[in-house]
Formats: sequence, C-alpha cells, structure tokens
Amino acid sequence: MPTVMDPATSVAAPTRFIETKLATYAFRRFGRSDGPPLVCLQHFTGTLDNWDPAVVDAIARGRDVILFESAGVGRSTGEVPMTVQGMAAHFLAFADALDLRWVDLLGFSLGEMVAQVAALERPSLIRKMLLVGTAPEGGEDIMHLEKPELRRVLEDPNIQGLQKLVGLFFTPSAASQRSGQAFVARLMERQDDREPVSGPAVAQAQMTAFRAWERGDGERFAKLRSIAHPCLVVNGVFDRMIPVRNSYFLAGHLPNATLLVYPDAAHGSLFQYHESFVQQATLFLDGGGVGNG
Amino acid sequence: MPTVMDPATSVAAPTRFIETKLATYAFRRFGRSDGPPLVCLQHFTGTLDNWDPAVVDAIARGRDVILFESAGVGRSTGEVPMTVQGMAAHFLAFADALDLRWVDLLGFSLGEMVAQVAALERPSLIRKMLLVGTAPEGGEDIMHLEKPELRRVLEDPNIQGLQKLVGLFFTPSAASQRSGQAFVARLMERQDDREPVSGPAVAQAQMTAFRAWERGDGERFAKLRSIAHPCLVVNGVFDRMIPVRNSYFLAGHLPNATLLVYPDAAHGSLFQYHESFVQQATLFLDGGGVGNG
Repeated sequence: MPTVMDPATSVAAPTRFIETKLATYAFRRFGRSDGPPLVCLQHFTGTLDNWDPAVVDAIARGRDVILFESAGVGRSTGEVPMTVQGMAAHFLAFADALDLRWVDLLGFSLGEMVAQVAALERPSLIRKMLLVGTAPEGGEDIMHLEKPELRRVLEDPNIQGLQKLVGLFFTPSAASQRSGQAFVARLMERQDDREPVSGPAVAQAQMTAFRAWERGDGERFAKLRSIAHPCLVVNGVFDRMIPVRNSYFLAGHLPNATLLVYPDAAHGSLFQYHESFVQQATLFLDGGGVGNG
Repeated sequence: MPTVMDPATSVAAPTRFIETKLATYAFRRFGRSDGPPLVCLQHFTGTLDNWDPAVVDAIARGRDVILFESAGVGRSTGEVPMTVQGMAAHFLAFADALDLRWVDLLGFSLGEMVAQVAALERPSLIRKMLLVGTAPEGGEDIMHLEKPELRRVLEDPNIQGLQKLVGLFFTPSAASQRSGQAFVARLMERQDDREPVSGPAVAQAQMTAFRAWERGDGERFAKLRSIAHPCLVVNGVFDRMIPVRNSYFLAGHLPNATLLVYPDAAHGSLFQYHESFVQQATLFLDGGGVGNG
C-alpha cells in the first residue's frame, strides 16, 4: 500500500478506515513521509480526538504521524478487549494492514501498556518507544478511579465533558490548571469529522484490562528485561492516575530507558509541557537526544 | 572586579587564586563572558582536575564557567569543613570575593549538597541549578563506602588512581566501562598546573559531612520546599554511591525540579552521557529546555 500523504496536521487530517480480519479501524495520518512513522496509542476512553494538536502536530513537522483507534473505540468496529494483550493484537493487525514494517511508538497511559506488549510480541516492528504516564505489568495503584482525589473530579456534577480531563490530567496549581484549559481548548480545534465519545462499555472493558495488568503474572518486571528498544519514559511527578513510581519501575528494569519527570504535573505532563515534550521527543527519536536513543 | 577572560577551555585555563577572610581559593575560569556564570561544585575528594573537559568545556562554548576549589582541597588553603553548611560558607565567600551576583550552579554529588545549602541561605545569588548524582538532607544510603560493591573497588590493589573512578562512577557493563576509560583519559588531558590529589584528611572530613547530611534535622525534606529555583536533577539509574531514589526524593519535594535519569549509568552519568548531558544542561540553562527552566 503506497503512502498517501494527508494534510499536515491532526486538526485537518480526514479520518480514514482500514479493514482487517479482526476489525475495521479508524485512523488519521499526517506529517512528512520520510523515516519511520510514529504511531500514537491512546489512553483510557480516549479517541482520535484526544490527541493534543500541540503535541502531535508539532511532532509531525518532522515525521509521519499515525493516530490509531483501537477496536470498539470511536468508529472502529469490534469489541474493546478486556486485556492489554487483546488490544495489542488489534494494534498489530492494524500495523500489518497498513504494511508498517518499522515504527516508533508514542504510547500514553493504557496506550503504552499496549505498546509494551507489542514490543514483546513483535520486537522487530518497533524502533523506539515513548512511554508516557504509564506502568509496567505488575505496577502499583494503576487507575483506581475510586480514590477520593479522582472521585472528587469524576463525580462532581459541575465538572462536565473535557473539563474532567482538566481535573484529572493536571495538578491543582494555578499554572497547571491554566495549561489544562489551554489543552482542552486545543482538543476542540478540530470541528468536523470527530469521533463519538466513549461510553461506559468502553470504560468497563478497559478498566478490566487495567486490573489484570496491575495483577501481572510471573516474576515481577521480568518481561521488561526483554524490551531492549531505546525508550523515553515520561511522567508528571504528581500523577494521581498512574503514580510516578511506576515510571521509576520502568526506568529501573527496562535496559535502555531514559526517564524524564516534569514538576507540578500530573497524568497529562506531555500536554502541560508540550513544547518541552515535543523537543525531547524529537531529540530522542532523531537519535541525538537523551540516553542511548 | 572586572571579568577577565581566561582561555576557552578547562584544559588550558590557568589556576587562579582569590583571597577571602575565610581562605584563599583556587579556581579556573573559562568560556564566554555573557550571561550568568555557571559555577561548578565538586564531588567527594575531587579537585579542579576532576571536571571532565567533555562536560565543562562543551558547556563553556556558550557560557562563562567557573570551577571552584573549596577550602582544604587542592591548593585552596584552610581546613575541609566537617559539615555541608561549612562548605557552603566557603562557596559564598568565594562568590562574594569574585563579585558574582547571579549564578547558575552545577553541583555534582557533595558539590550539589553545598549548592542546596547556598540556595537556602542566599536564594538571590542563584538563578538555576543542575543537581547531579546527589541527595537531599535526610536522604538514604549516601556514600557508604563500606558497602561490598564499593569496597570491592576501593580495596582492590590492582585498581589504582583514576581507575578507581572507573569502578565507582560507571556500571559493570562493557559500554559503561568503555565510557569510564574515555573519561579518565580526558581527565589527564591537562598536563601542567594540576592540583595535588586529595589525601585521607580530606576524605575523612567530607565523610563526616555526608553522615550529618544523611541524618538531617527537622521535618524530612521540608527545606526543599523553600528552594524555588528551576532545577534539573540528573542521575544514573544504577548509582551505587548515592542511589537514584535520592533523586526521586528531590524531584518529589523540590517545587520546580525536572528529573532526568540515564540508563545503564552509575554516579558518573554526566560523564558517561556527556553529549546528552551537555545538550540537556544547555537547553535547561538557556530556558528553552525541560520543565519550567
């Protein structure tokens, strides 16, 4: 399948669809065509519309970016798997259908768990990985939405729609909250051809996957030793959804992972510090950046 | 006192001396004169000759760099203080004598502990700080040279002189050991006008200071809340002298600290990854870098 260049930004790129044996997936592709594409794997209940243009469009100035919608989310068909392994199978089917041979991955939260499984199952497909706001299998305190500090946001009837993300992805500081408002404004820059918002069925299946991921199996963190890819692990120091100690586990057990942690930031550190994140991601992906990248 | 520009590199810069009421300090100054100088505060038993040219000369391409020799070390007069606070008093006396009004600090290990105290005592003197391989007051497992993995290097009669640093500052991996050999070769690039190597009296006094720093006083890590300066905390994930969890404490309690941790690296991560470190330090100091820097 030849590379068809879509418009240069996520805001303008049309949603496209590709059929596989497993499901038909929605995706958007934009940016430059040279070099390995960067495939972006999304967070809990997030759709294609949840990628911050300030992050993905800025990265796309230098590379081919693909946003992937997994099964059962948005307009992708099929059921949301109840395991991360099931989600990875969808990602691999998608990569094969697009004839992607060698990609970089930007996984955020749940998306990066999918990337970790893909890296174990198909190491040759992946060049480098950005692991943002995520945790290894067997990690701790992963997405416990019943915690008071998260329930306070989730159950507040005065906080609706994308405003939930401001409460969940950013810290209570004035600076972080301002960043959060700017972030949700950017998510609305795309006006047409948007994805349907995820409902409770998506959330429930994905939450089941989080619980299994947290339990893990076998020797704790042993699988990480087999992920030799250059990795950049990124998080906010005050992430309440997937606490930063999970990033410390990743840095301590992945053989080639550099760790970057932002101050006064929560789960959405990449959106809060989008300029720095894009700079660091580009340095890392271009190979002149941190660590062994 | 006017800025006198020395040669452009640490290898070529003459050792200079400045007298204060407390002591006469040796120092070297090199690089460009514009912008706040970067003052470098050295590690346990290290002298002016222990700064890696690949780090400080590369940074000096864009800024004024000053290497400071504290009291009782090298050719600086006086006694080595037995507290970090005493060492900070020497640094402040030195800064005043050179009429430094606003500086950046690169503190490595013990040197950065000195910088933390200086930041508390004279916050207006400091613009930004690079905290490398270090720990907060009240940190854990700080410089316990009696640990088997460190004794193995320190007591091996076949490991002499700078080769001790290869064993202590680098991991056992082949890549890290190669970096270590390149590092000690660079330390010998300067052939004349070198400092005397530190003896047991220096080590003993500094070790006393480490023990008091590790004990700490008052509410644990409370002082860090008052250090509002932009900070970049850097360490190797396998530091055996001052383990990386001390860097996690710093990132968790300093209000404006970004954290960068390198893979397969120990205490000397800044020397092992000197190209990346210089790039990251420059981004951070120039203000376009990580975090709020």
